[in-house]
Amino acid sequence: EKLLSTVEPTPQRVGPHEFTWLDVRGLRDVTWLGNLGKQFNLHPLILEDILNTHQRSKVEDYGDVLFCVVRLFAWDATSQSLESDQISLVLGRNFVLSFQERSTGVFEPVRERLRAPGTPLRNKPIDHLAHALIDSIVDRYFLVVEGLDTAAAPVEDAVLTHPTPAILRTINGLRHEVQTIRRAITPLREVLMTLNRGESRFFGDEVRPYLRDVLDHTMHVQEDLDSVRDVLSGALEIYLSSVSNRLNLEVRVLAVLTTLFLPATLIAGVFGMNFQDMPWRDVHDGFWLAISLMAVTATVLAAIFWRRKWLKTDDPN
Amino acid sequence: EKLLSTVEPTPQRVGPHEFTWLDVRGLRDVTWLGNLGKQFNLHPLILEDILNTHQRSKVEDYGDVLFCVVRLFAWDATSQSLESDQISLVLGRNFVLSFQERSTGVFEPVRERLRAPGTPLRNKPIDHLAHALIDSIVDRYFLVVEGLDTAAAPVEDAVLTHPTPAILRTINGLRHEVQTIRRAITPLREVLMTLNRGESRFFGDEVRPYLRDVLDHTMHVQEDLDSVRDVLSGALEIYLSSVSNRLNLEVRVLAVLTTLFLPATLIAGVFGMNFQDMPWRDVHDGFWLAISLMAVTATVLAAIFWRRKWLKTDDPN
Amino acid sequence: EKLLSTVEPTPQRVGPHEFTWLDVRGLRDVTWLGNLGKQFNLHPLILEDILNTHQRSKVEDYGDVLFCVVRLFAWDATSQSLESDQISLVLGRNFVLSFQERSTGVFEPVRERLRAPGTPLRNKPIDHLAHALIDSIVDRYFLVVEGLDTAAAPVEDAVLTHPTPAILRTINGLRHEVQTIRRAITPLREVLMTLNRGESRFFGDEVRPYLRDVLDHTMHVQEDLDSVRDVLSGALEIYLSSVSNRLNLEVRVLAVLTTLFLPATLIAGVFGMNFQDMPWRDVHDGFWLAISLMAVTATVLAAIFWRRKWLKTDDPN
Amino acid sequence: EKLLSTVEPTPQRVGPHEFTWLDVRGLRDVTWLGNLGKQFNLHPLILEDILNTHQRSKVEDYGDVLFCVVRLFAWDATSQSLESDQISLVLGRNFVLSFQERSTGVFEPVRERLRAPGTPLRNKPIDHLAHALIDSIVDRYFLVVEGLDTAAAPVEDAVLTHPTPAILRTINGLRHEVQTIRRAITPLREVLMTLNRGESRFFGDEVRPYLRDVLDHTMHVQEDLDSVRDVLSGALEIYLSSVSNRLNLEVRVLAVLTTLFLPATLIAGVFGMNFQDMPWRDVHDGFWLAISLMAVTATVLAAIFWRRKWLKTDDPN
Amino acid sequence: EKLLSTVEPTPQRVGPHEFTWLDVRGLRDVTWLGNLGKQFNLHPLILEDILNTHQRSKVEDYGDVLFCVVRLFAWDATSQSLESDQISLVLGRNFVLSFQERSTGVFEPVRERLRAPGTPLRNKPIDHLAHALIDSIVDRYFLVVEGLDTAAAPVEDAVLTHPTPAILRTINGLRHEVQTIRRAITPLREVLMTLNRGESRFFGDEVRPYLRDVLDHTMHVQEDLDSVRDVLSGALEIYLSSVSNRLNLEVRVLAVLTTLFLPATLIAGVFGMNFQDMPWRDVHDGFWLAISLMAVTATVLAAIFWRRKWLKTDDPN
Repeated sequence: EKLLSTVEPTPQRVGPHEFTWLDVRGLRDVTWLGNLGKQFNLHPLILEDILNTHQRSKVEDYGDVLFCVVRLFAWDATSQSLESDQISLVLGRNFVLSFQERSTGVFEPVRERLRAPGTPLRNKPIDHLAHALIDSIVDRYFLVVEGLDTAAAPVEDAVLTHPTPAILRTINGLRHEVQTIRRAITPLREVLMTLNRGESRFFGDEVRPYLRDVLDHTMHVQEDLDSVRDVLSGALEIYLSSVSNRLNLEVRVLAVLTTLFLPATLIAGVFGMNFQDMPWRDVHDGFWLAISLMAVTATVLAAIFWRRKWLKTDDPN
Repeated sequence: EKLLSTVEPTPQRVGPHEFTWLDVRGLRDVTWLGNLGKQFNLHPLILEDILNTHQRSKVEDYGDVLFCVVRLFAWDATSQSLESDQISLVLGRNFVLSFQERSTGVFEPVRERLRAPGTPLRNKPIDHLAHALIDSIVDRYFLVVEGLDTAAAPVEDAVLTHPTPAILRTINGLRHEVQTIRRAITPLREVLMTLNRGESRFFGDEVRPYLRDVLDHTMHVQEDLDSVRDVLSGALEIYLSSVSNRLNLEVRVLAVLTTLFLPATLIAGVFGMNFQDMPWRDVHDGFWLAISLMAVTATVLAAIFWRRKWLKTDDPN
Repeated sequence: EKLLSTVEPTPQRVGPHEFTWLDVRGLRDVTWLGNLGKQFNLHPLILEDILNTHQRSKVEDYGDVLFCVVRLFAWDATSQSLESDQISLVLGRNFVLSFQERSTGVFEPVRERLRAPGTPLRNKPIDHLAHALIDSIVDRYFLVVEGLDTAAAPVEDAVLTHPTPAILRTINGLRHEVQTIRRAITPLREVLMTLNRGESRFFGDEVRPYLRDVLDHTMHVQEDLDSVRDVLSGALEIYLSSVSNRLNLEVRVLAVLTTLFLPATLIAGVFGMNFQDMPWRDVHDGFWLAISLMAVTATVLAAIFWRRKWLKTDDPN
Repeated sequence: EKLLSTVEPTPQRVGPHEFTWLDVRGLRDVTWLGNLGKQFNLHPLILEDILNTHQRSKVEDYGDVLFCVVRLFAWDATSQSLESDQISLVLGRNFVLSFQERSTGVFEPVRERLRAPGTPLRNKPIDHLAHALIDSIVDRYFLVVEGLDTAAAPVEDAVLTHPTPAILRTINGLRHEVQTIRRAITPLREVLMTLNRGESRFFGDEVRPYLRDVLDHTMHVQEDLDSVRDVLSGALEIYLSSVSNRLNLEVRVLAVLTTLFLPATLIAGVFGMNFQDMPWRDVHDGFWLAISLMAVTATVLAAIFWRRKWLKTDDPN
Repeated sequence: EKLLSTVEPTPQRVGPHEFTWLDVRGLRDVTWLGNLGKQFNLHPLILEDILNTHQRSKVEDYGDVLFCVVRLFAWDATSQSLESDQISLVLGRNFVLSFQERSTGVFEPVRERLRAPGTPLRNKPIDHLAHALIDSIVDRYFLVVEGLDTAAAPVEDAVLTHPTPAILRTINGLRHEVQTIRRAITPLREVLMTLNRGESRFFGDEVRPYLRDVLDHTMHVQEDLDSVRDVLSGALEIYLSSVSNRLNLEVRVLAVLTTLFLPATLIAGVFGMNFQDMPWRDVHDGFWLAISLMAVTATVLAAIFWRRKWLKTDDPN
């Protein structure tokens, strides 16, 4: 067996009775890739698909080789954004080629297991290696879901304590990421089901149960995604509800203000009536007595509303 | 084996030990169809069902032939509408007849696989071809769901940024399309279950696991549909919520306006009181002093509400 | 084999090595039924259960015969109502008795298959016939769900365009029908599970997989019912939401009216102040100038609100 | 075989090659129970568990006997309340002891089947009897769910026609009952899974499929419970929504009242203005003319609102 | 076999043909742990993982030993908080080492079963013991879910009777705990699936079905968690709804107050009109008559609203 990791693509000779894993990272050197394709006798369509890095997950049987495209996701916690890479796998009789746009480190655990002396992976047929590669890709999905889950947790709190439009944008962004991964899982599952079936001559009976496990993992990813989506939906509901509540609190304050002016306006109206015989009319401080009466009623009312906390707009309770 | 694709229906001779796939597109030439029916010895009820293109998916056993009607869907992204075609399949001992109302291109992948030299499909029994045809129909369901999913994504954003009645109509339209496909899947699943059972003599034991896969695919279609429906339901909920919020914002503005007039009206009332001894009464600019007092109070209140952003109706935050 | 369909119950002799299917429709002639019971040696409890037509689905083992009661549903699209009938089946060693309250036509497809020459059903053991009868009952459930689904579709539209109390009643009615069928499926499933088990000596190993299919069908019925229920719940939510929105629109109109009167009332108050020196006081048309000022401010405000469409109550957008 | 049913506990001799079922109802005579325990050589912990009647379902393996505690529920339709009993089962090599706090009648169907001559239950090993007892306990769960379903149905209607706090209390009560049973099912399922496993030496291979059926039943109970819970959640949502709607209707009435006074107040203000030259001032009935004008405008407005049904608080439509 | 329970870590000799279970509680004595690691020939990474007590559940195959990290949860009903411990298991050919940060008592049931004379666990291979330890950890999850369920029950009531911000905090806290456990279950399930697979040489075919049972238990934990989450979501919805209702009730009170002042203000305005000929103008008690009229109308209105209970803010019904 031979192991080669290249940031810059490098050719590699294939020995008899051995298998070669060539992990190509960086796809800019197209002529080099063309030579590699000739060396391994790859169909031109395969090279085209490798270079076109915006495809959905799929598997294609080219007779002598099996060609897989699998979408890889990574959650960047700093920028709170989802990154997506395309991993292309060419599974041949005695070689596995993996192509990455840039160095994602997704195959590091496999490489470490291969490097360890006496590891079972070195002495087993090539389909075990192929399974290990696919498994490490699916494992990344769990990390992404965990990242989304971790990003969703503070949103849930913030929505109750101080709901701001920024949180609404965060919720909406996370919902989009969840939906993006959800969309990517169905074709991935199709790929795994195709590989799992007896159709392809590549995977032996010994590896197939492990492939089925990987298929099960995609189910768990989906369940966990649904759980994150539920959390986000709940947060959105609380957000909308608390925005509505704050508005109602503000309208209540305005209604309280209106109520405070009501008795004063009535008193002014009362003393504006044109009766011949009215109290205080000719008293020297009649005007100020009326003003005092207005002030007293308004103050009493304000005190009542203050005690009932009907003048606060920040706490709905 | 013989392969024939016809936009206009064409007859085809059937050789021994070979199988024929006749793909009839366009059903207007009824006499030609009648002749075809006689040639292949089809029951008149089959021809009737082929011509009646508004049926649900179903399968019927006519002893010598198996007759399937399957509904095909296509999502037209330009007109944002769902198109529906009826595909009729007649599965005989050594022939498969497929009937399409118009050229849908659904069988193109199968035709290409048949044309490729050395393809396994050419050398296998006819039930493999029948499976390939049915599989390519079900694959179209995935495309439709993907189309609906892509159409639903911008709605989710628009509903938060500027909710308009047009978006409500779009949401409702998409919900209808989702429900239409959901309704079509149950009979399709019944068809696949019937074919899958040991009952029909047409499908061999080798093909049956693949048929079961197709059945599994319908489950995935249903799950993905449910996911799209959830997205749309969520968007509708946000829409209704934001319409309600905007209304409340407008009512808040009206309440603010009312509040702005309160002190001015009170001041007018105060100076309208009929006391003998009133301040400013006999001052030359008493009237204008009162007016200024009104303007000042209103301006101060307006400034307070302005800073609190209670006069905006476009942003609920 | 002998086939007998009777609107009025008719006795039937049982020959050796043959099986008899007696389809009794109408249960009013109790003495005739008693004679039939004696002829087939039925337990009195069976006859009692046949005549008591308001039971849940159940199965009972009487040793020599198996007695099933199954609930049949039909959706009357004209009256938009659910009809329910009780079908009783007595499965004996060489006879099947079916009892219907009134002619439901549920067994017509079975009868047609039996009449067709060379049909497999005629030459197979009696348990195949029993399965066909039960299958045709369960098939009716799909028709009912389809009927409910079709009835629910227009409701979804109407609720958005013009929500009326009549639609609320329709939604509630359909929700009840859905719940009624959902309640009937659990005992039906229990019946099918009991028949499916090895316990009963009636159904052979050949028929059992088909019975399991029928059991699967009940699952699909349940899924489709849940889908209809979701549609109705969504419609109800939109209804309640749009009623609330319309109320808010009306309150907004009232708030606008209040706002229109505010400046006019203030102007009246201003010119009601008791200052010695007031503008327009002694002008001849002072009164009318004030009235004009009121009219102008109210008109300007009304125009502003009109342009913002705050005076409409029919469209929340 | 020997059958003994006792309202008051009675001892029973155990013969060789026979099995004994002792159904103890009423647990007050502790000394008698102690003697029974000695006779059957029961571990003191078993007797303690039998007397402590507030336990969750559980199963314990005492080597020579298997000890089950199962929770039994009954729905009392009259008092609309849930009753709960503890059934303890001791399964020995040739005896089954069942203990009930009070006579629940849950084992009546088993007793009747045993009494019937030639019943298979009498001639089969003791594990068949144990299965029958457990099955009849689980069957009671269906009755309870049915009772809750029946109690939930009228709530759904009432919530739309006249929502009262009493209905809110009913909904909340039923939700609690549903949750109580849901909580009891998980340990019950654990008991059945433990019995179903190969671990216990008590149940033979012949009975195990039946036990698995009972396990399936608990799944159905859970599904039905979820359905009832959905109905109740929907009813609660409608209740809260209609309470909110009624409040809004009342606020609308108050806003209409405010609007009715607006023009009258404006007219009063207008004729309170201090212009030298005012219409009607010196007319004899000027005052009454103004009053009439107020009355007319208020009446016209009231008529408009009346026709629009904005003065009704009972119907949101 | 040898059994050793140590609060303070203690070394233990390993005899031939026997297995040793060393339960280390407390991880502060690092040098002692280093010696233990040397004695059992543990990889330094294992010791590092044991001491780093904030890891997710995982399993690692070190060739000669299998190393598991499992998260243990406990619900403290007094402080209403979730406690989390890390249990590390080292499964060797003839020894099992378990490491706990502090004494959690999770293995007490296993220890008791080992102490009982003639227990099957003593005479079976070591993988039975390992299963028993893992099983008792998973059993704790049920206790935690039960604790959360019990804590959620009173919240559901309180939210209807007197919704306070404290309840909102409780709901939110419990929702977090539920989500925390939900997050911990996916890696735990991965661990159990890995152990369940044929890959690891540690668990024999006899134990594997029991491991699968444990895997099933995690499913039940998840279902029960979802049920608790539903209860909490429902409670939150009711809370938000009742806060909104209370606000609306308060706004209604304010609107009623406004309405009470309307007729009085109108009367004051009416008697403030400047007509020459006005009723009561020159009557001695004219002023007081007007005041009485105001008082009467306000009182009548207040009585009407009182009877309609529109002045209450505590009961939305």
